[in-house]
Amino acid sequence: MTERILVLGGDGYLGWPTAMHLSARGARVGVVDNMSKRAWEREMGVQPLIAIPSLAKRIAAWQEVCGRSIELFEGDLTDTDFVHATLGSFRPDTIVHYGEQPSAPYSMIDVHHAAFTQSNNVVGTLNVLFAMRDLLPDSHLVKLGTMGEYGTPDIDIEEGYLTVDHNGRRHTFLYPKTPGSMYHLSKVHDSHNMHFATRVWGLRATDLNQGVVYGIETEHTALDPRLATSFHYDEVFGTALNRFCVQAVAGEPITVYGRGGQTRGYLNIRDTLACVALAVDNPAERGEMRVFNQFTETFTVRELAERVRDAAAQLGIEATVVHAENPRFEAEEHYYNPRHSGLLELGLQPHLLSQELIDTMLQRIVQHRDRIRREALVMNVRWTPKPAAGAPVGS
Amino acid sequence: MTERILVLGGDGYLGWPTAMHLSARGARVGVVDNMSKRAWEREMGVQPLIAIPSLAKRIAAWQEVCGRSIELFEGDLTDTDFVHATLGSFRPDTIVHYGEQPSAPYSMIDVHHAAFTQSNNVVGTLNVLFAMRDLLPDSHLVKLGTMGEYGTPDIDIEEGYLTVDHNGRRHTFLYPKTPGSMYHLSKVHDSHNMHFATRVWGLRATDLNQGVVYGIETEHTALDPRLATSFHYDEVFGTALNRFCVQAVAGEPITVYGRGGQTRGYLNIRDTLACVALAVDNPAERGEMRVFNQFTETFTVRELAERVRDAAAQLGIEATVVHAENPRFEAEEHYYNPRHSGLLELGLQPHLLSQELIDTMLQRIVQHRDRIRREALVMNVRWTPKPAAGAPVGS
Repeated sequence: MTERILVLGGDGYLGWPTAMHLSARGARVGVVDNMSKRAWEREMGVQPLIAIPSLAKRIAAWQEVCGRSIELFEGDLTDTDFVHATLGSFRPDTIVHYGEQPSAPYSMIDVHHAAFTQSNNVVGTLNVLFAMRDLLPDSHLVKLGTMGEYGTPDIDIEEGYLTVDHNGRRHTFLYPKTPGSMYHLSKVHDSHNMHFATRVWGLRATDLNQGVVYGIETEHTALDPRLATSFHYDEVFGTALNRFCVQAVAGEPITVYGRGGQTRGYLNIRDTLACVALAVDNPAERGEMRVFNQFTETFTVRELAERVRDAAAQLGIEATVVHAENPRFEAEEHYYNPRHSGLLELGLQPHLLSQELIDTMLQRIVQHRDRIRREALVMNVRWTPKPAAGAPVGS
Repeated sequence: MTERILVLGGDGYLGWPTAMHLSARGARVGVVDNMSKRAWEREMGVQPLIAIPSLAKRIAAWQEVCGRSIELFEGDLTDTDFVHATLGSFRPDTIVHYGEQPSAPYSMIDVHHAAFTQSNNVVGTLNVLFAMRDLLPDSHLVKLGTMGEYGTPDIDIEEGYLTVDHNGRRHTFLYPKTPGSMYHLSKVHDSHNMHFATRVWGLRATDLNQGVVYGIETEHTALDPRLATSFHYDEVFGTALNRFCVQAVAGEPITVYGRGGQTRGYLNIRDTLACVALAVDNPAERGEMRVFNQFTETFTVRELAERVRDAAAQLGIEATVVHAENPRFEAEEHYYNPRHSGLLELGLQPHLLSQELIDTMLQRIVQHRDRIRREALVMNVRWTPKPAAGAPVGS
């Protein structure tokens, strides 16, 4: 029987290429989205670099280009009845869950955006877990988390769990998390809820603590302009390397927050698809919450910026790297040694970051340079708001 | 200047006696409640053992009996504007936060109750943290958590933090939590959010991981029948010892879940008030999330049940202890060694559980025995629902 995979958040930067990738491999794929990312873009006044047709049009284009159908379920994951009905009718073997508010800066705008991000993400995931329990207890949840859940502890970051020897006894815990934003906190909350659902209800789940994804193109987005993915370069939805490439092309300085020693895990968007497919093909056991740290390389922000500058120079684009005031609260120099062997052991073949890759990204961005809106590059969402002029300090 | 203390959840089992206790000590006290606990009681068809006047009437009775006023702010903590306005007008030095859905069984009824519990508790606390940041950054949050956040790990439970030596390096983490219900998970989410607010915004917070509270009377509830607190004995809102005492008086068997080796920390309601007052009098530093494990003794559930049976026998009440199927998912025999030195070091003088105390509780319950509703003693909320008859197993 054909494998059924439901991709939650199928309209997103990663959800859409994942849906095509899994469809091309032969699965029957459904996508769920409420198109709220597009609403958040309008709210913030930003747009993806490449104009993106509606999800229904992309699905029609996919059918036309590849002869494969993808089913669309339009609705909100915080709507319990919708989630129950969708899982009940599609009956997925695997649920790939990208369907959350994905931006740390968006979650830090104010109390409303913080509360929305946490309740939206947590309640959506709870609805999925309960529907799995009640309808599809043997199905497998592949949930996207983030390496940002861990923060930057002074010891090695293990892959999901930490065995602690203490006063002559030993226990293995979920690895303790020290996340850096209201968004990252929402993913920590999700991980605890998923862990409960595996421990108590015996569900299967894989928690993918993903690094920062870069890249503009996958095997299938390249087939037709209508299949492009929503590449963001703005400060709210754009990730570091993507934003730096656009800054270089736009002739703007590449802005590194603070000293730029912040080290993070990174991966190519093509590797995201490969990792998710490996997790789908090798499901967790019943009662297991399996955790993978999903990235292929670590870089400091400063290193990334310099690589982009150097690649741009070879294309005749002169870019400068500047150190801007850090709007986030984070250590700018720190120990960082996260494990990431689980997906390699399953067979991941990484696409490492190369000069050539940056060149290709820059060239693709040059093709769309007329759509770059400079004001989106720096939007000034601050982790700790500056007090208003004249406001009292202290209480 | 008179100290100002705002008690969130001031209509509850602990909130109301805490408000009176702090008011009697001389603070200017405000209470916040949206009376939703009373709505949840109606929903579940349960009532406190002692009929409780409205919060406004209790406040008027307190004024009459003790000559001290308490200010009432009626509203919902999930209403951002209400929280902002209330903190802005009352300007508390300390916020004592009991204002959450407090029942594990209630949170496990179904997906709606789980999602409600988590979003209600998490969003309410976020609103408080943001309002503190923006209006009262020097104020001190004293937040009620629960020992149930920790679960029952195989190593000692430290007081909030765990220092881990790993591969030759050392880091101190928030103690990793393995909570046992959707309610307990909501408190874990709160703790992570509070930790963020202290780390990033420099707020002051004390997280009280409280054990199971028992008792029916405090110094001030005893002053006047109108000042009584909402003592619950039903399976959803009643805690273990309280429920066992009511079962004995009602001539019902004392129901121990499973083998009854579940060990938990317990404390007298009078000690809850003393602990909260100690936390108020000794605020956390700016940027500190201080954690106390708030209980005075540990017992197995079996021990508690036997103590109640023996005390009842001396009052001529013959009670039996029965082992009922455990509706929860929890280890029934396990290691349990939680620290609880922080509050003792601040001067806590515990009221330990004695035969005499159980006698007094039983006698007070006998006075109200005509209000006991037997059907509330066993309500059958299960952590893992039984499949409906004829339902397929697996997907």
